Amino acid sequence: MVKKVYGVGIGIGGESLTLKALNILKKVDKIFIPISKRGKSSVAYELIKEYIKDKKVEELLFPMSKDKDELKKCWEENLKKILSEEGEVALITLGDPTLYSTFSYMWKSLREKGVEVEIVSGISSIFAAASLLNISLAEGEEKVCILPQGKDLDKYLDDFDTIIVMKTKNLENILKGLDRDDLTIYLAKRLGLEDEKITFGSPREINFNEFNDYLSLAIIKKERR
Amino acid sequence: MVKKVYGVGIGIGGESLTLKALNILKKVDKIFIPISKRGKSSVAYELIKEYIKDKKVEELLFPMSKDKDELKKCWEENLKKILSEEGEVALITLGDPTLYSTFSYMWKSLREKGVEVEIVSGISSIFAAASLLNISLAEGEEKVCILPQGKDLDKYLDDFDTIIVMKTKNLENILKGLDRDDLTIYLAKRLGLEDEKITFGSPREINFNEFNDYLSLAIIKKERR
Repeated sequence: MVKKVYGVGIGIGGESLTLKALNILKKVDKIFIPISKRGKSSVAYELIKEYIKDKKVEELLFPMSKDKDELKKCWEENLKKILSEEGEVALITLGDPTLYSTFSYMWKSLREKGVEVEIVSGISSIFAAASLLNISLAEGEEKVCILPQGKDLDKYLDDFDTIIVMKTKNLENILKGLDRDDLTIYLAKRLGLEDEKITFGSPREINFNEFNDYLSLAIIKKERR
Repeated sequence: MVKKVYGVGIGIGGESLTLKALNILKKVDKIFIPISKRGKSSVAYELIKEYIKDKKVEELLFPMSKDKDELKKCWEENLKKILSEEGEVALITLGDPTLYSTFSYMWKSLREKGVEVEIVSGISSIFAAASLLNISLAEGEEKVCILPQGKDLDKYLDDFDTIIVMKTKNLENILKGLDRDDLTIYLAKRLGLEDEKITFGSPREINFNEFNDYLSLAIIKKERR
């Protein structure tokens, strides 16, 4: 049975890798890389392949599906593949493994089977976006919230200084109706990839449609005037 | 005048450094390290000194004071020191430079003077804590908020799946009164340092007083039962 599984956050890839992540990727016997569709290449692998050229890698299918039976079948297959390894392996994930990772289920199942799992932090796209956009996420006593799919956005617009909307393909639908002059919206997509893009502006100015990508996020900030 | 200033997040130090952070720390002409009191050593420096043994470093005083005049005087002095450099320099900061960093003011002032500033992401203590505690910060559609000093905590306990309280020396005062069975509190302090500590439990079980340290944080999670 597999000896140890590392859940390695790769941040936005490239130099955003931590020393720990790189050391682990270099020492493990195999690296499992996630794909969302058979035949499609792995974004996570693309972002770090320069560092793991001679490593044994194996794809695991994690479909972007809402069909619970299909998902369960894939997860069990993936679990079986990981368990059947002999040595230490890593499973890589974009960003950080503790924030909206598809693999939380995997870590739990592995631990239930008595397998040692170690989570290795990565730079979340939230922080990568803030640095590229040259903004602070929060200062002093400012409050921040993260709303997946923009859930309950209207409810929190007045309360929070910074709101992050992520885990959606439809930033446009969620944000285009925001008719307020006190907000600046910062958008980032596909960070670390060739077609990465950032922009910012008032809700009325922004061209949202280029940011309708699952690997995108919005940082909404209330401007003090 | 200084050519370029890197605001480098060092995460929790050690192997949590990113490749980018390390490359920049190695190439700059000088590294500015923050101290909170004259004569006191720099926590940020302690956490990465093994990697920058031969580098020129200089201390900058950022006091933990609420006296605005004193703060302003220190900031202006620090700004002058940075501006008077000749080449490229780095200013290191714990965690990530965009989340509650004392230096946000510094980046802004430098940019206003026409200096190029590049922010380099680091692993926030929030993520470092989650990985050490073996928990997910959020899964699926769960909402997260970050409340500095636990501001408005009562208001959000029912709404958010995960609440992070940080930037306080008084976790005990903020959290000990939480008389609810549906919460688990996860605490972490001084991550990366010799006296790092983590614990978790219900509000009634936890011994808070060991966590009354400015470099501590709490992750409050609602348990689904």
